[in-house]
Amino acid sequence: MLSQVVELIENKNKFGITTHIKPDGDGVGSSLGLYWLLRSLGKEAEVIVHGDVPQSYRSLPGAEMIRDVRSIDREYDAVFVIECSDVSRPGIEGLEKQFTVNIDHHSTSEHFGTVNWIDSTASAVGEMIYNLCKAIGGKITREIAECVYMALVTDTGSFHFSNTTDRTLKVASELVKAGVKPAEISEAVYNNYPWSRVELMRQVVATIKRHDNGRIATMRQTLEMRRIAGAVDGDNNGFVNIPLAAREVVASVYMREVGEGKYRVSLRSKGDINVARVAEKFGGGGHNNAAGLSIEGDWDTAEAEIVNKLRIEINQYDINSTEAD
Amino acid sequence: MLSQVVELIENKNKFGITTHIKPDGDGVGSSLGLYWLLRSLGKEAEVIVHGDVPQSYRSLPGAEMIRDVRSIDREYDAVFVIECSDVSRPGIEGLEKQFTVNIDHHSTSEHFGTVNWIDSTASAVGEMIYNLCKAIGGKITREIAECVYMALVTDTGSFHFSNTTDRTLKVASELVKAGVKPAEISEAVYNNYPWSRVELMRQVVATIKRHDNGRIATMRQTLEMRRIAGAVDGDNNGFVNIPLAAREVVASVYMREVGEGKYRVSLRSKGDINVARVAEKFGGGGHNNAAGLSIEGDWDTAEAEIVNKLRIEINQYDINSTEAD
Repeated sequence: MLSQVVELIENKNKFGITTHIKPDGDGVGSSLGLYWLLRSLGKEAEVIVHGDVPQSYRSLPGAEMIRDVRSIDREYDAVFVIECSDVSRPGIEGLEKQFTVNIDHHSTSEHFGTVNWIDSTASAVGEMIYNLCKAIGGKITREIAECVYMALVTDTGSFHFSNTTDRTLKVASELVKAGVKPAEISEAVYNNYPWSRVELMRQVVATIKRHDNGRIATMRQTLEMRRIAGAVDGDNNGFVNIPLAAREVVASVYMREVGEGKYRVSLRSKGDINVARVAEKFGGGGHNNAAGLSIEGDWDTAEAEIVNKLRIEINQYDINSTEAD
Repeated sequence: MLSQVVELIENKNKFGITTHIKPDGDGVGSSLGLYWLLRSLGKEAEVIVHGDVPQSYRSLPGAEMIRDVRSIDREYDAVFVIECSDVSRPGIEGLEKQFTVNIDHHSTSEHFGTVNWIDSTASAVGEMIYNLCKAIGGKITREIAECVYMALVTDTGSFHFSNTTDRTLKVASELVKAGVKPAEISEAVYNNYPWSRVELMRQVVATIKRHDNGRIATMRQTLEMRRIAGAVDGDNNGFVNIPLAAREVVASVYMREVGEGKYRVSLRSKGDINVARVAEKFGGGGHNNAAGLSIEGDWDTAEAEIVNKLRIEINQYDINSTEAD
């Protein structure tokens, strides 16, 4: 818990900080926010991540110092592990032998750390880093503020998702007071793609189809589209949400061809429609309104199976609503 | 100023509230927020608007009571005029003869009111309504909170635009505390379109072109596309921003055919690129990063003229930057 984290920061000096592979804004932002907090307290610290930092987060202060690491190669008094369900998620060998501090806002955390601080009421680990800074009597510097703001913005979908609380917005307000320019963070996240995103989008939106009286929409991204667009990973961020703009669409399916007859599928839904339950039927998983799965075979058949399971889920919900009336 | 507004609310009893034609989220949200504040103080009040309330705002509490009015047909002690540069903007005859209270956050306001309260530091008039509620000692009810939150979200582009201050986010936090569900407001604004939006989008994104070494992007919406999609006004909201997701694009041009050889054009830009200056050259206007104009003639020629003026504007900026180094 928080008091333990405060105590160990006071008593130790040399810290590693890591997060999951393919880190998101909360992973990178919270890691760097913690880095700047530790540095402001006169501690030694470094952020180590398996692989590259995505373009969107490279403008954050300190991002250029993040080291791409596959195994623990330095000595630390403790290693912070940010937003990971288990110790293998960072993909760093030898991490399990370290003194680890597991900081997460997912209630599903496996409490793998030597010390564990889990707060499922926080919208993002970034919010927890802010709380840590306050608890330790640290100053919210401009560096800390920018990194933590990035964490909040990305994990709440710009304060849209249902995890956005009055506390989240209060923290965001304090961060702006500390020097964050919200427009600059948004620019870095949403307007920082290569042109190939636009090329890919125009091909993908051409494939949007409606099913089940317009309640379900599907989209397809072929390997060929990716090649034509010259697309890179992440270029399709958010495309799955495009059909949800239509009020009658309650679930969206984004099927991405990843090999011969192999597809990676993203599901999104509105309100109470639980797409995690649908994803689980195909061996996938996720959250209520955002889930994913992998599937193989003929494209049309695979799509029909997913749409069918979604239809059952949606009808189930309709029945429940009616019964509740 | 604020104290005058507080005083007149205390001393008068029967209020009209109006805003500009084709009202946006700040217009509707602030009008209704003020309505609920006045009602909670035991005053008589009604919101009158010229024309329909856009779909996105119809779920706000009280929206169903907004009256479509073309001329003043009842007696009021005072009429609040929300977010209007001059008294003709609401398109309501006889308004100029009323005791009017001009509430606006644009410094360009013409101070046309009997009483004028202009606060250009506010991100939205919604923020001012919140301040009014506090100044008058009113309670932020759930109704007031939802309406004002809508105003903030829409006028700050979900807390993305540079008008987002620590004060904006602090107010947003208080509104969530008063019962706002941010996800519900977002859903109403962003996921409340007819399916025709998707049909229109797929046609429009197919027309995206790059100019000036990829720094300028253009898009076209023909009358024929609108017909094929069965599109309604507002279906293209935000399409102009799509190409700005590419980091090298600094200005975007959305040309919408409105008649034989007649186009309505939206311009958007990043950072310091001033598209209002470009729009003014064609008799249009707007803000630094968002402006509009009307143009006639051959489509390719008109587009080339706009792109050329944008190019000059962008180059101008490049030179200035270099000189500043």
